[in-house]
Amino acid sequence: MNASVNTKPRGRQFFNNPGPTNIPDRILRAMDRPVMDFMAPEFLEIQRACMAGVKRVLKTDQTLFAHASTGHGAWEAAVANLFSPGDTVLVVETGYFSLSWKEMAETLGIKVETVAADWRKGVDIAKVAERLSQDKAHEIKAILAVHNETATGLVLPLPEIRRALDDAKHPALLLSDTISSLGSMEYKMDAWGIDVTIGGSQKGLMLPTGMAITGVSAKAMEASRKSKLPKYYFSWELMEARKPQRFIGTVPVHFFFGLQESLKMLEEEGLDSVFARHARLAEATRAAVRAWGADGKGPTLYGQTPDRLSNSVTTVLMPEGVSSDGMRKAALERFNLSLGGGLGPLMGKVFRIGHMGDLNEPMLLGCLATTELAMKTAGVPFCPGGVDAAIQSLAG
Amino acid sequence: MNASVNTKPRGRQFFNNPGPTNIPDRILRAMDRPVMDFMAPEFLEIQRACMAGVKRVLKTDQTLFAHASTGHGAWEAAVANLFSPGDTVLVVETGYFSLSWKEMAETLGIKVETVAADWRKGVDIAKVAERLSQDKAHEIKAILAVHNETATGLVLPLPEIRRALDDAKHPALLLSDTISSLGSMEYKMDAWGIDVTIGGSQKGLMLPTGMAITGVSAKAMEASRKSKLPKYYFSWELMEARKPQRFIGTVPVHFFFGLQESLKMLEEEGLDSVFARHARLAEATRAAVRAWGADGKGPTLYGQTPDRLSNSVTTVLMPEGVSSDGMRKAALERFNLSLGGGLGPLMGKVFRIGHMGDLNEPMLLGCLATTELAMKTAGVPFCPGGVDAAIQSLAG
Amino acid sequence: MNASVNTKPRGRQFFNNPGPTNIPDRILRAMDRPVMDFMAPEFLEIQRACMAGVKRVLKTDQTLFAHASTGHGAWEAAVANLFSPGDTVLVVETGYFSLSWKEMAETLGIKVETVAADWRKGVDIAKVAERLSQDKAHEIKAILAVHNETATGLVLPLPEIRRALDDAKHPALLLSDTISSLGSMEYKMDAWGIDVTIGGSQKGLMLPTGMAITGVSAKAMEASRKSKLPKYYFSWELMEARKPQRFIGTVPVHFFFGLQESLKMLEEEGLDSVFARHARLAEATRAAVRAWGADGKGPTLYGQTPDRLSNSVTTVLMPEGVSSDGMRKAALERFNLSLGGGLGPLMGKVFRIGHMGDLNEPMLLGCLATTELAMKTAGVPFCPGGVDAAIQSLAG
Amino acid sequence: MNASVNTKPRGRQFFNNPGPTNIPDRILRAMDRPVMDFMAPEFLEIQRACMAGVKRVLKTDQTLFAHASTGHGAWEAAVANLFSPGDTVLVVETGYFSLSWKEMAETLGIKVETVAADWRKGVDIAKVAERLSQDKAHEIKAILAVHNETATGLVLPLPEIRRALDDAKHPALLLSDTISSLGSMEYKMDAWGIDVTIGGSQKGLMLPTGMAITGVSAKAMEASRKSKLPKYYFSWELMEARKPQRFIGTVPVHFFFGLQESLKMLEEEGLDSVFARHARLAEATRAAVRAWGADGKGPTLYGQTPDRLSNSVTTVLMPEGVSSDGMRKAALERFNLSLGGGLGPLMGKVFRIGHMGDLNEPMLLGCLATTELAMKTAGVPFCPGGVDAAIQSLAG
Repeated sequence: MNASVNTKPRGRQFFNNPGPTNIPDRILRAMDRPVMDFMAPEFLEIQRACMAGVKRVLKTDQTLFAHASTGHGAWEAAVANLFSPGDTVLVVETGYFSLSWKEMAETLGIKVETVAADWRKGVDIAKVAERLSQDKAHEIKAILAVHNETATGLVLPLPEIRRALDDAKHPALLLSDTISSLGSMEYKMDAWGIDVTIGGSQKGLMLPTGMAITGVSAKAMEASRKSKLPKYYFSWELMEARKPQRFIGTVPVHFFFGLQESLKMLEEEGLDSVFARHARLAEATRAAVRAWGADGKGPTLYGQTPDRLSNSVTTVLMPEGVSSDGMRKAALERFNLSLGGGLGPLMGKVFRIGHMGDLNEPMLLGCLATTELAMKTAGVPFCPGGVDAAIQSLAG
Repeated sequence: MNASVNTKPRGRQFFNNPGPTNIPDRILRAMDRPVMDFMAPEFLEIQRACMAGVKRVLKTDQTLFAHASTGHGAWEAAVANLFSPGDTVLVVETGYFSLSWKEMAETLGIKVETVAADWRKGVDIAKVAERLSQDKAHEIKAILAVHNETATGLVLPLPEIRRALDDAKHPALLLSDTISSLGSMEYKMDAWGIDVTIGGSQKGLMLPTGMAITGVSAKAMEASRKSKLPKYYFSWELMEARKPQRFIGTVPVHFFFGLQESLKMLEEEGLDSVFARHARLAEATRAAVRAWGADGKGPTLYGQTPDRLSNSVTTVLMPEGVSSDGMRKAALERFNLSLGGGLGPLMGKVFRIGHMGDLNEPMLLGCLATTELAMKTAGVPFCPGGVDAAIQSLAG
Repeated sequence: MNASVNTKPRGRQFFNNPGPTNIPDRILRAMDRPVMDFMAPEFLEIQRACMAGVKRVLKTDQTLFAHASTGHGAWEAAVANLFSPGDTVLVVETGYFSLSWKEMAETLGIKVETVAADWRKGVDIAKVAERLSQDKAHEIKAILAVHNETATGLVLPLPEIRRALDDAKHPALLLSDTISSLGSMEYKMDAWGIDVTIGGSQKGLMLPTGMAITGVSAKAMEASRKSKLPKYYFSWELMEARKPQRFIGTVPVHFFFGLQESLKMLEEEGLDSVFARHARLAEATRAAVRAWGADGKGPTLYGQTPDRLSNSVTTVLMPEGVSSDGMRKAALERFNLSLGGGLGPLMGKVFRIGHMGDLNEPMLLGCLATTELAMKTAGVPFCPGGVDAAIQSLAG
Repeated sequence: MNASVNTKPRGRQFFNNPGPTNIPDRILRAMDRPVMDFMAPEFLEIQRACMAGVKRVLKTDQTLFAHASTGHGAWEAAVANLFSPGDTVLVVETGYFSLSWKEMAETLGIKVETVAADWRKGVDIAKVAERLSQDKAHEIKAILAVHNETATGLVLPLPEIRRALDDAKHPALLLSDTISSLGSMEYKMDAWGIDVTIGGSQKGLMLPTGMAITGVSAKAMEASRKSKLPKYYFSWELMEARKPQRFIGTVPVHFFFGLQESLKMLEEEGLDSVFARHARLAEATRAAVRAWGADGKGPTLYGQTPDRLSNSVTTVLMPEGVSSDGMRKAALERFNLSLGGGLGPLMGKVFRIGHMGDLNEPMLLGCLATTELAMKTAGVPFCPGGVDAAIQSLAG
C-alpha cells in the first residue's frame, strides 16, 4: 500500500473494553435533547420513574441515591457516610478494584483489614467466615466487597458472604460494589442482605460515565447518623432532606434522560433475558479462549474457578513472556477494535474482553474474530479456531 | 428459556444488505440538524462544494445534477432527457437491474435490444462489439450498462465497452449505472468515456435513500436537446436553467448536509484507500465463501468470472435444493444480522453479502461469523472454517 | 466593535420561511438512526402505519402513494398518470405556485386554461363555475387547484370549487395541492370530493424535504388507466402493482422513520388542537402586521380577503418603493432570523412569515420582534407596537 | 376549546433559566457519539486540548482539574483540599449561593466569617478591606467569593477584592466561584490574582450538568499540601499524581466531546464577541424590565447597583404582594417558556431571566415577549412596551 494512503481504521469501532461500554443509539438519542428545568414537574416525574426503575434492577425497596460522580464518588460516599476516623472495615480482596477501594478507605482515615485471595481463584469464603467469627468485639463495622471484579473477571458469591455474617451473628454492614455486574448479571440487594450497593452509569446501564447510584438499607441509613467523617456533596443525610430531588446542587438531567431509555430497554428485553444473553455470550467468549489455548501455548482464561467466571468480562492471560500490548495496539490501530488492558500487576500480562451491556452475537463474534486477527498480525501464538468454538457454543 | 421471555435480538443490527448500506454516525449526526433556507448563501456554498466533491469521486469535469429521487428516478431522467419515442437503445444484460432499466425504457416508449449474458459469467464483450459493428445505420442511440450488478455481484468492464464503441466508430452514447460501485470501486467517468453516469445516495456515499446524481457529458447534453419525451421534474434543460441551484422545486438540504460529511470522510481516507479497503474486505468475504463450499456441498460464489467479482457485494449460491430464506430469517430474527436475498429468478437461490461503504474488519468478520452461525442453526450444509479463511486473508 | 471580532450571528436560527419549516428535535432524532432493510417485516409495519396515519390527516379512505421526490414530483405524477397529450385542464390561478403547476402541465403536453385572479383578493369562484357551465362537451378533464398558495398567503375555498363542479354536473377531476396546508389547516379530502391530493414532507408534516404523498380517489385511479403520457418512476399503476410497498425502487426508510414520529406528534396534540394553534398564531401575526401599517405608511397584509388569509403563512407587502431585501438580509445576517422572500413578480415587494408546523408563542413572538428589529435597523418605515398587538391577540 | 383537546404547549421550549442553560445543537450532536477508551491516544489528545482551551477561557496558565461532579463538588474539592478542621475563612455575602458555600464549609468543619451585604446592592468592598486589615494574625486562610451571584443577578468586582488583599498585605487565598459567569463575562484568573477558580459545565460552557472544573494557582497547590481534611475522590494531590489524565476513576469522555465543541464555538465567535453579545442582550433585558416597571407598579430590576448588574442573568423583583409563581407557571405550561424562580428568601418574590450561553436576539426577544404575555394572562400589573424597549436597545 502506498505510503501516502491513509491507514487509519474506518467503520464503527468495536468497543469491547469492560466498561465504559457500548451506549446504544437509543440511549444516545434520548440524551441528545435540550435541557430541562430540574425542578419542573415533567422532570420530577422522569427522575421518580428512573429511581423506581433502578430499584427494580437492583431488586431493592430501600433508599436509593444518585450522585453526579463516577463510581469512585459513590465509593467515597459510602465510606464517608458510614464511618468515623479510626473505624475498622474488612475488605475482601478480589483484585485491583477491591484494593483501590481499600486505598480510598485508608486515605479517608479508616482502618482496613484485608482477607487476602489468589486473584485467579477468588477468595476463600471460609477465611472471611473465620475472620468474622474471631471478631467477638464486633470491631469490624463493615465488609467492603466487589461483586464483579472487572480486573480479573471473577465474581464474588455475595450470598455466601451474607451467610458468613449471619452464621457469625456479626452485625457488620455488607457493602457491595456492583458497578460491572449491574444490569448484566443477577443481583438481589434485599434478598442477599446487602446494606449498601454501589453502581455506575457506564456499564450494564449503558450510559455515559458520570452518574453513580447507591442503594442504602435502613440499617445503613441508621448507621450513617453516627458517622463523623466530614461530607457535604455526598452526604446521604443532606440528600435525604432535599426532597423530592434528593440531590445536592444541579441535577444532571441528561443522565436521567438516558437512564429512562436504558431502563425501558432492559425491561423490554426482560431482566432474565438480559442475564441469559450475557451468560450465552460470555460462554461463547470462554469457548473461544479455551480453543486459543488448547495446546497449552496460547492465551488462556485468567480465572481458574469455573463457577465464578464473570458473565460481563473475560480476562485472558497471555502466554508466558508475551505482552498483551502489541496485539491490543494492532487491534485498535489496524482494525478499530478496543480491548481492555491489564490493570495494576496484570498490566501487559492479560487483556480483557468486555461483553456487557449492549451486545449481541455478531458484535461479539466480530470482536473475537478480530482478536484472532490481531493476535495473528502481532505474532501472538495461539491455536486458531476460537471463533469456530464460539459459533459452536452459540448454536448449541 | 421461559416462554414469556423476550427473544427479540438486541444490540446493534449488522446491516450487510448490498445497499442501502450502513450510514456512519458522522453522517447521521451531520443530517441531524435544523433546516436551512436553500437559497441562503450558506447553503449555496454547501451545495456547490458537494457537487464539486461528487465530481472528484466520479472523476469527471462535466455537468452534474442531483435529483430528489432514488436511482430509478435518475434512470428515468437519463431516458427521458436523451431519447424520443421509437428510438433504439442497447441494454447490456448483467442481471436483475439491467433488465429493470430495460423494462423502464420500454415502458417509456423506447425500443430496447439486449445483449444477452450468462448472469454467473457476465456478458461477452465481443457480442457487444459485434452488435455495434453490425449497426451501420447507427440506429442504436445509446448503450445502457450497469457497472456493478448488485443482484449478481459481477462488475462490467466499462472500458472494454468503450473500446467496442470506439473500435466500431459508433456514435452511441454510453450510459452507466454506478449506483452500487460509486464510492466503493474505481470509476473514471471522463477517462472511460462515459456519457451519463447514474448514482444514488444510499450505497458507497453512505447516505439515506432519496437523492440521486447524474453526470452528463457535453455530448449527452447536446443530444438531450433533441429528445421528445415529455419531462419536467427530471428535465436537465430546466434544471440547467435554474442556476445556481440547478434544481426543480425545493432543494432537499438535509441530503447535502449528509453528502458534505460523506465526501469529507471519503477524502480523509483517500479514494485509493477506500477502494483498497473494499478490495481487501471483498477478498476476505470470497475466501470465507470458498471455504464454506470447499467440499462441493456447501454454498459457493455465484459469480464464475474471477476478475469480474465485485468488491462491494458478494452473491452466494446456495447448495442445490436448499433455500436461502431459512438462514436469512435466522440471521435476522435470532442474531440481528440483515443479509440480502436473491432478486428475480435468484429469489431463494442465493443470498447476498453487502460489503460496501462504512465497513471494517470486525464488522465484516462479525457478519461472516454470524452467517456461519445462522447457516448452522438453519441446517444449511457448509464446511466450517469460513471465518478462519477470512482472517487468514486479512492477515496476509 | 473591533473589526477582527466575529459578527456572525450565534444561537439558534429562527426559521420562519413558509416551508421547508422547522423540524422538531423529536423528528430529527427519530431519523437519526441506522438504516433498515425496507423489505423487513419491522419496516413494512412502520410503513403501513405511516400510510394509515397520513390518511387520517388527509381525512381520506382512498389510495395513498408516497414518492421519493419533492412536491413537484407528485405534481408531475398527477399530470402524467391522469392525462394524455392534448387533454385540457383548468388551472385556478392563486399565485406563483398555481402558475408553476400550469407551466409543468403545458411542458408535459397538456392544454391549460386558466381562471385568472387578483392575487391579493383570490379567485372569484363564480368565474370558475361559469367556465365549467360553459364546458358542455366536458373537454376540461380536471381542475388543478392550490389549496394554500404559499406565495400570497391566501387559501382557496375548495368546497366551493367542489360545489361549482357539482352544480354544473361536470365530471372533471378535482386535483388539489395541499403542500403548505397539510397538517396546519383543516383538509377533508373525501368530504370535499377531492380526487387527487398532493402533499410534501417539508411543511406541516415537519420533515426534511424529499418525500411527497399523493392521495388518489377511485375515480382518479380509474381515469389513470386511460392516460397515455409516458411514466415509470411516478406510475401509480406500477406502484399499485408492487404490493405491499407500492414503491418503485429503494424505499427511503428514513423519511418513514420521521413520518412515524411526525404523526405521533400531530395525534398527541390532536389535529383540532394543531389547527387551533395555527389559527391563534396566524391571527397574532396578522395583528402585528396590521399594527406596523396602522398609519398607512408601513408594511401591510398582502391578502385583502380576510376570510381567505392563510393560517400557515402571512405575506407582508412592503411600503411602496421599499424593497424587502434589506430587512431580510439584516434579519438573517445580523439576527439569525430567516424570513421568506417574494416569489416571481412579488420578488422584493413582499416578505413572507411562515408560521406552520412546529411553532409556539415564544417562537412566533421572537420572530415578530426580530422582524421589527430588522425593519428598524434596515430603515423600513413602520409603526412600532406590532409585538404588543400580537401579545394582546394571544392573551385574548 | 374542547376539553378533550390537548393543551400541552408545543414547539421548542424557550429555556431562560439562569443555568443549566441552552445546549446548542452542535454540542448535543458532538456528545451523541459512541464511547471511547479514555486511555486511548485519541482521547488523551481530546482531553489535553480541552484543558488547554479552558485555560484560555479562564485566562490562566496554572493547574486545571476537571471533576465528574457538579459545581458543588468543586466547591467541596476547594474546601477539602485547602483547609484543615478549625481553619477560618471569610465568605463575602452576595446572595443565596454564597451562603450555600458557607454552609458547606461549616459542615465540613471550617469556621466561617461572613462579610454581610444587602443582596440588592452588593457587598461594600470597604467592609472586606476593613476585616482584612483587622486580621493582623492572618487567621483568615481564604476569601470565598461568588463572582456572579446567580440568585440576585449581581456581579462581585473581584479585582477590588484582590486589591483589598494586596492593600492589607494579607496572604489569604482568594477563591472564586465563576460558575455562572464563565464563558459569558470577562474573567481573568491570573491577572486578577485568583487562587482557585470554580466553574461548571452547564452555564456559559453550554454543556449538560455533570462536570466541574477548578483552576488552582501555584500558591493554592502549595497550601493544599498542608490540608488535613480527608478526601480522595476530589483530592488534587491524587489527581495530580495520575498523569496524564489527572483523574480519579473513569473519565467521563462525553463531557470532553462536548467541551471540545463548546470551546470551538467560543473561539470561533471570539471571547470578546461572546462577552459583547452577552452585554448587548443583558442591556436589552434590563431595558424591558425598566419599561415594565416604569410607573412604579410593575416588576423592577432587583439589583440596585447599576455597574454590578450581571450580563448572564437578570433578577426581576415582583410588585409588592404579587407572587412570581403564577406568571412562571403560565409561562411554562401555556407557552413553553421556562423562567427561573426565586431562591431561598427570594422564593416567589422574584423571577430570573437567564441570558447566558447560546442566545441571540430572537431567542431573547421571544423570551421577553412571552414573559409579557405570561404576566398579562396571569394578571401581573406591568407597563406594556418592554419588548419595544428591548428592540430599541438592540437597534441602538
